[in-house]
Amino acid sequence: MAQNVYAVTIWTCYLLYYEYNYISAKRIECFYSSKPQPHQFTILVRGIPVSQGSSVSDSVDKFFSEYYPSTYLSHMVVRRTNKLRGLIGESKKLYKRITHLQSDPNQQRAGCCGCLGLFRRHRADLVDQCEKKLGDLEENVRMQQSEVSSSEEETRAAFVSFKSQYAAATVFHLQQSVNPTEWVTERAPEPNDVYWPFFSSSFMKRWIYKIVVIVACILLTILFLIPVVIVQGLTNLNQLEVLFPFLTSILKITFVSSVITGYLPSLILQLFLKSVPPIMEFLSSIQGYIAHSEIIKSACNKVIWFTIWNVFFATVFSGTVLYQVSIFLDPKSIPARLAVAVPAQASFFIAYVVTSGWTSAATELFRVIPFICSLLRRPCAGNTEELEIPTIPYHRDIPRILFFGLLGTTYFFLAPLILPFLLIYFCLAFIIFRNQFINVYRSNNETGGRFWPNVHNSMIFSLVLMHAIAVGIFTLKKLSMASTLIFPLPVLTLLFNEYCRKRFLPIFSSYSAESLIKKDRQDENDPSMPEFFSKLVSAYQDPALMPIQYSSGRDDTRTTPLLSTEAEAEAEAEDGDGDGDGEEAHRF
Amino acid sequence: MAQNVYAVTIWTCYLLYYEYNYISAKRIECFYSSKPQPHQFTILVRGIPVSQGSSVSDSVDKFFSEYYPSTYLSHMVVRRTNKLRGLIGESKKLYKRITHLQSDPNQQRAGCCGCLGLFRRHRADLVDQCEKKLGDLEENVRMQQSEVSSSEEETRAAFVSFKSQYAAATVFHLQQSVNPTEWVTERAPEPNDVYWPFFSSSFMKRWIYKIVVIVACILLTILFLIPVVIVQGLTNLNQLEVLFPFLTSILKITFVSSVITGYLPSLILQLFLKSVPPIMEFLSSIQGYIAHSEIIKSACNKVIWFTIWNVFFATVFSGTVLYQVSIFLDPKSIPARLAVAVPAQASFFIAYVVTSGWTSAATELFRVIPFICSLLRRPCAGNTEELEIPTIPYHRDIPRILFFGLLGTTYFFLAPLILPFLLIYFCLAFIIFRNQFINVYRSNNETGGRFWPNVHNSMIFSLVLMHAIAVGIFTLKKLSMASTLIFPLPVLTLLFNEYCRKRFLPIFSSYSAESLIKKDRQDENDPSMPEFFSKLVSAYQDPALMPIQYSSGRDDTRTTPLLSTEAEAEAEAEDGDGDGDGEEAHRF
Repeated sequence: MAQNVYAVTIWTCYLLYYEYNYISAKRIECFYSSKPQPHQFTILVRGIPVSQGSSVSDSVDKFFSEYYPSTYLSHMVVRRTNKLRGLIGESKKLYKRITHLQSDPNQQRAGCCGCLGLFRRHRADLVDQCEKKLGDLEENVRMQQSEVSSSEEETRAAFVSFKSQYAAATVFHLQQSVNPTEWVTERAPEPNDVYWPFFSSSFMKRWIYKIVVIVACILLTILFLIPVVIVQGLTNLNQLEVLFPFLTSILKITFVSSVITGYLPSLILQLFLKSVPPIMEFLSSIQGYIAHSEIIKSACNKVIWFTIWNVFFATVFSGTVLYQVSIFLDPKSIPARLAVAVPAQASFFIAYVVTSGWTSAATELFRVIPFICSLLRRPCAGNTEELEIPTIPYHRDIPRILFFGLLGTTYFFLAPLILPFLLIYFCLAFIIFRNQFINVYRSNNETGGRFWPNVHNSMIFSLVLMHAIAVGIFTLKKLSMASTLIFPLPVLTLLFNEYCRKRFLPIFSSYSAESLIKKDRQDENDPSMPEFFSKLVSAYQDPALMPIQYSSGRDDTRTTPLLSTEAEAEAEAEDGDGDGDGEEAHRF
Repeated sequence: MAQNVYAVTIWTCYLLYYEYNYISAKRIECFYSSKPQPHQFTILVRGIPVSQGSSVSDSVDKFFSEYYPSTYLSHMVVRRTNKLRGLIGESKKLYKRITHLQSDPNQQRAGCCGCLGLFRRHRADLVDQCEKKLGDLEENVRMQQSEVSSSEEETRAAFVSFKSQYAAATVFHLQQSVNPTEWVTERAPEPNDVYWPFFSSSFMKRWIYKIVVIVACILLTILFLIPVVIVQGLTNLNQLEVLFPFLTSILKITFVSSVITGYLPSLILQLFLKSVPPIMEFLSSIQGYIAHSEIIKSACNKVIWFTIWNVFFATVFSGTVLYQVSIFLDPKSIPARLAVAVPAQASFFIAYVVTSGWTSAATELFRVIPFICSLLRRPCAGNTEELEIPTIPYHRDIPRILFFGLLGTTYFFLAPLILPFLLIYFCLAFIIFRNQFINVYRSNNETGGRFWPNVHNSMIFSLVLMHAIAVGIFTLKKLSMASTLIFPLPVLTLLFNEYCRKRFLPIFSSYSAESLIKKDRQDENDPSMPEFFSKLVSAYQDPALMPIQYSSGRDDTRTTPLLSTEAEAEAEAEDGDGDGDGEEAHRF
């Protein structure tokens, strides 16, 4: 037994090392081969101190011109545009409605309303009304925009661009000000990845938000156990019969009882779990991250630990919240308790792989839920052939896959029956996600393999958990030799993890001076650089401050209507991304 | 009660904040007013990759000339000089002996040997013999030096100097190579603070040493409990009577019993504790630190936690090692157990303050132990008026003072009687250490307030421990209201600590870009800079590779004898520092 555990651990660690190495190499390769991108030349500066009578913009300009005269290029102060964003959202909606009303007058509600003439007149009135309203709104937006640009709506944050990537990196890595809470630097996200709504300005405020979010996460994790406990109750027929005696006759039917014990619990759990990724995304979004990708990454991490705690431990140690917490306050006894509890839940987890894993892979392929949603929405919104190209919800899928990894690692020697089910799931998932990545989803930003460290950590955790269970089981079976043999294994695994952290993790957090300088020299010879720099100056313009033009006046100022070319539509969709309201749409 | 705890916590935190702020400001002020110093312009690079056929020196030169052509100044590869250092140590000793023999022939052993003529002839023979031996040794040293300089004795580490402090800081802060285990940068210590003996070259080796040291520290901490438990047994007369029944009659005498319970235990503990700082210093020295000051700092940290664990917890929870560990494996019950155990030991700790604190302060003033040592050594070494100027053993004194801080914080509401004793100790210590700093010790290197974060952390730990005890006591006394009121306090204290970490700690780990650039500009106008740079090139020369000249040949090559001027002696003492063998001596 012990040698099995050793063999699997060594093999897993070898694969993890190999993969980390491979992904690091890919990441560096990708960096070298990439075109120069605005976020590589830019940093975000927060906590800008402002002296009396001067603006944030002046302050930034003064500071960087003084200390980085040779490399400083430009800056863009972040402004409070929440109100403006609301107005723009409204006018977008209105504009959509108008085009919807105008676009297909013949088919429009022809089925439900016979008196076409009357309807048409009513429609024309409606369009006029809407257009007028839109005009007003746009006027309002323009006024607000000029107000925001000129007045004191500056936050104490700014995107500062430099003439080389190396210069940006040095400014990012060094503490800028004598007071470490001022001129705090952060890596800038890609321009269309910036999460504009949240630019909490002060250092303290951000920090308090972070603590609040941590507390909220803990509360959510604890409160979530209630449905899980109920679900767990359902897998136990006896308990059910005691609670609902009138069900006894129905539960005697083999089919019903097998559905209830085998399938229903994990389905209910599944439905509850569905709500977790959006909640975690929301929590991450108020935590003060400045990029959508960062929010997703943080949410992904939260969901991983949430899943491990609330699906694995809550199912294994089914019981009250206090009981679970008490187990973790008594760490000595964890292996013994795991050894008793984990094998008992093998059948549940096999069912879980089928219900959650296989089903999710299948629904992923057919995108059942978005399909149903669009079916439901179509009659209301009309069939204007609107189709959103979705982004992949990493924070929903990665934790699920990792959780199956954890199940595979912990159950491989307790209930090997789970392995074929998992293998089928992983094969399915590989094929399906490959397809989805290539054909279905659009990528919002370049992740650059930044999720791998999370995957690695979760696998290491799985291994250590597996060792704890193995120790517990060997002790239970009185194989003291085997359990003693296992003891060095978690220590060695953690040392391996520590080595990987030293060897690979820095590559994922920043690029080395060597590569940055090489890339800068390479870029110097690029003839397109002056053009790139001129674009860079305005790359981090808040999309809410871009001029908008929807109303009838569009034909006066711009000769091409907005919807004419796909390129334009795409540009608009990108603005929408920046807005972060998910209303962006490619139109075909 | 609860409001007392609140008041003391708030007051302590206020003082901690004030002091952190003050010391940070002082640190920055000191930086601005300092003359340019070699370590500010230099970094240490480790893990230098060497391609086939080229040397480390070439590799460094190539890398930095390529990537930092405008700021790179020079480098100095570190060489393996352990053997050489041994030879130099030997010749130094021999040289000392010769001067000792020559210097004062009349007084020499006049007391113990009457036949002066015989002795004188014998002495002359001895001097001749020694001089010959010294000449051989020096020849050997010179040969070794040339061997080391020319051949393959290079380690994969080098000191690299730059033309500005800002350039050195950027290189230090950025990951240099694509492979994070190569070209690893570290801050360079002051030239005379470098700890030459330990330059373990590879990344892996260093890392393994670190783990070994951590394990050794844990083992030491656990093994140390054995004498502490014995000591603890001595404070308990009944136990003693059971163990040694023949002592019963003696123990009945009030004076004997009061000495045994009140004074003896802490004296024995004290003697054992005396051995800890040197052991920790040794462990830190093999951990891979490159500077004496770093070793002392790390040893100081180790001794702090060692003292808290082995004096505080071991005394409070007197019992077996396993019992103590089991307490910490059951964190729920810690406050309740503390509430029972801590007040019971109040009298022991009051005695401890007197025996350890007052006594140590007094012995510090009179330097009793060095005095006794020198008295003992004098008859053997002769009275050649050798006097070492000692450096202050931070790792011995800071932990002691911090431990008294911990006692004051935890006992102020349990046994306020301890407070006047502590107050007297702190007053004494303030006056005595002030005197010692000014009049007795020499400073080996500028600490720049770098010990303050340790002090801060230890005080925060004391506060949280005090809260835990308060909760336990209030629960024991069934003051549930008070114990509930205390609960937010440790959380708030930790948040305060977190804030201080963000607000002040970065100032202690590195200087900001703003100050570096300002300082660089200030230096540019300094007319002494070219001279400074020319010195900088050879500042990090290993003292073992400096030319030595002790033997009779000294009058040929150098016109001034080595011992003539004090300046020379001081320069030599500095070399000695670099050697780290503690044999350096100012001679008067």
